[in-house]
Amino acid sequence: MNYLFSSAMDKFQSSAVRDILKLTQGKSIISFAGGLPAEELFPLEAVQEAYDRVFAQGKGVLQYGLTEGCTPLREALCERMRGKGMNLTPNEMILTTGSQQAIDLLTRVMIDPGDRILVQEPTYLAALQVFQAAGAVVHSVKGDEDGMDPEDLAAKLKQHQPKFVYVVPTFSNPTGYVWSTERRLSLLKLCREHNALIIEDDPYGELQYGADDHFPSILSLDEHPHGSAVVYTSTFSKTVAPALRTGWAIGDPAIIRHMARAKQAADLHSSSIDQLALYQLLSHFDLDAHIRVIRREYGARMKKMTTLLKPLAAAGLRWNEPKGGMFLWAQLPEHQRSDVLMKEAVQHGVAFVPGATFFAENPKHNAMRLNFTHANDEQLTLGVERLAAAMKVLQNA
Amino acid sequence: MNYLFSSAMDKFQSSAVRDILKLTQGKSIISFAGGLPAEELFPLEAVQEAYDRVFAQGKGVLQYGLTEGCTPLREALCERMRGKGMNLTPNEMILTTGSQQAIDLLTRVMIDPGDRILVQEPTYLAALQVFQAAGAVVHSVKGDEDGMDPEDLAAKLKQHQPKFVYVVPTFSNPTGYVWSTERRLSLLKLCREHNALIIEDDPYGELQYGADDHFPSILSLDEHPHGSAVVYTSTFSKTVAPALRTGWAIGDPAIIRHMARAKQAADLHSSSIDQLALYQLLSHFDLDAHIRVIRREYGARMKKMTTLLKPLAAAGLRWNEPKGGMFLWAQLPEHQRSDVLMKEAVQHGVAFVPGATFFAENPKHNAMRLNFTHANDEQLTLGVERLAAAMKVLQNA
Repeated sequence: MNYLFSSAMDKFQSSAVRDILKLTQGKSIISFAGGLPAEELFPLEAVQEAYDRVFAQGKGVLQYGLTEGCTPLREALCERMRGKGMNLTPNEMILTTGSQQAIDLLTRVMIDPGDRILVQEPTYLAALQVFQAAGAVVHSVKGDEDGMDPEDLAAKLKQHQPKFVYVVPTFSNPTGYVWSTERRLSLLKLCREHNALIIEDDPYGELQYGADDHFPSILSLDEHPHGSAVVYTSTFSKTVAPALRTGWAIGDPAIIRHMARAKQAADLHSSSIDQLALYQLLSHFDLDAHIRVIRREYGARMKKMTTLLKPLAAAGLRWNEPKGGMFLWAQLPEHQRSDVLMKEAVQHGVAFVPGATFFAENPKHNAMRLNFTHANDEQLTLGVERLAAAMKVLQNA
Repeated sequence: MNYLFSSAMDKFQSSAVRDILKLTQGKSIISFAGGLPAEELFPLEAVQEAYDRVFAQGKGVLQYGLTEGCTPLREALCERMRGKGMNLTPNEMILTTGSQQAIDLLTRVMIDPGDRILVQEPTYLAALQVFQAAGAVVHSVKGDEDGMDPEDLAAKLKQHQPKFVYVVPTFSNPTGYVWSTERRLSLLKLCREHNALIIEDDPYGELQYGADDHFPSILSLDEHPHGSAVVYTSTFSKTVAPALRTGWAIGDPAIIRHMARAKQAADLHSSSIDQLALYQLLSHFDLDAHIRVIRREYGARMKKMTTLLKPLAAAGLRWNEPKGGMFLWAQLPEHQRSDVLMKEAVQHGVAFVPGATFFAENPKHNAMRLNFTHANDEQLTLGVERLAAAMKVLQNA
């Protein structure tokens, strides 16, 4: 047989992050590469109790469920979202296999080959892969620590007439940046003017370190008199656990209906056992108290990593101190390449993701993404030591 | 906002089956429409025990998993498949969100708009939807109770040069037919000659009623000296429970690798908690004994339904007695339309799926699919009574 694959497969590249994950599995490499939560914080007992409560309801819980996701969880999530200023009813929500599937489904229902999409520069790698595989033409908008540059955004909306603008405004992947409210409002205004939908990807929004910080979602700022301009997506992967693969998307009922049709073809529905368990978890477990524990711990790990990195400033390394999320964005001196450093680093037993992979255009070769949530105290120390050793080798080369 | 959806959405129709499911939820309608397993047979206790065993392994089970699916379950499934004459290693298998996702992923990696696909006439509705949404041109091959007609198949392979041929050879959806070994072999031979891949969709293969029946999968008949000609897919939905949404695909490692790339973009991975639980279930529960119970019960329900249908033969109704699976295929006299009957039937409190929805071309308007696995004894009796009453109304109209 001579297998004839679709042209989309030429555009697909395996995620560098997941390839690295695979490479490092079961090895003694300390990984700052993946976006893995801290395992030791997983609320295992509460999760197990939640499943027990589900099974106590009888055999019916094992039957086929609705494509849109199980109703009690959607209702409970709507309630939770209302607490964050997002007014919605369950017909404006669909449950997905992680928020990754929400991005994929929305792309299926919106994008024809040749359609344009705008993204932040840099942005989430696996979203870029979805867009490119769908045949979209992806353009990046310039920005800084406060979000997309409104001038560049306005120019590119006009020039490219994109179907949508994809953003991770709160503790962005890969940079950890958080958009100012002003920039959020200007995105909303400009996108409405150009009839471009906003995909607000918010997996990290709950993970702010400052107790008094408040970063309103773009959706919550949208008054949508003529249909919402925003499709918002989030997930339980960072607040409860990734293995349950439960995310959700919120949007205008017309969009959600189309996403449900696409999902019906994609997989009929996601695991309803996991959804029912999450409903029980929300009902019987103090998730907000649990999230406060995660915030504290991740804030401490971020502090630890940036403290450890300090001696590397002398070698020209620069980085930010994010206000939340799971990543920081470090930059080598302009002429150095993080992919070259990566190869040396793996030899020394530490991994990260070279920054160039997060760019749709004009990659920055000196940048890199460092995750600080999966490594414990000891691993953070050892990992940064190894990174320092790898940098030294390159500088002496 | 004026939402601009992709052209694929014009091709998408919501599944008639699932729309009916939605319509009948919580109502007193007896449904012969869906493909739902009998809830009372779900091995709830064993499933709960399996999850308990998973949670006993500690917090690591809640972390992100591999896109291809959790390794122990893939190994155990390979072993199980070997027992059915399919020789394979875990790198020839990917776990999916139900076998529906296997169909979708394979379509993504093989099909460009305008590519041709051959299907049985009639065939599984939700597969047709995937193919049509991908922009494929779908042609049907004539057939009978023994499978596709080799002559028509040869002609259409030559004429259309399809990327693949999609079949449900064992207890087909919607007909319940099972292919003869001869027809399986001729499909293999012809597809190899025309370099067309075979998708063998086998959700029902374990559900044969005759203790001594043996229907070899097409994959097990393929000696694949030059790469397998078959991608085989199956699921735990009919043997354990649908809510866990765990299916698998088996194929050449090159195809599986591409499917994993597509899955990475689609949802990163399926629920690993559910996969780990199914691994524990396979290790500690006698699934084969459980399947024997299902076979016996479904065989009895099929017998019950066909016995109840007998008086309707006088009104011109014809049907088959399947050797396994979940459906039988009934036909009204040529001039009558099952969609008209359906509307009347729902008024009488019984639902089924009109046959026309299962055709890619030249729909048969007098046919209908009847499911007999979800209704219990009493419901079967009452449902067929209601069906008879609805038929009577139409005949007197």
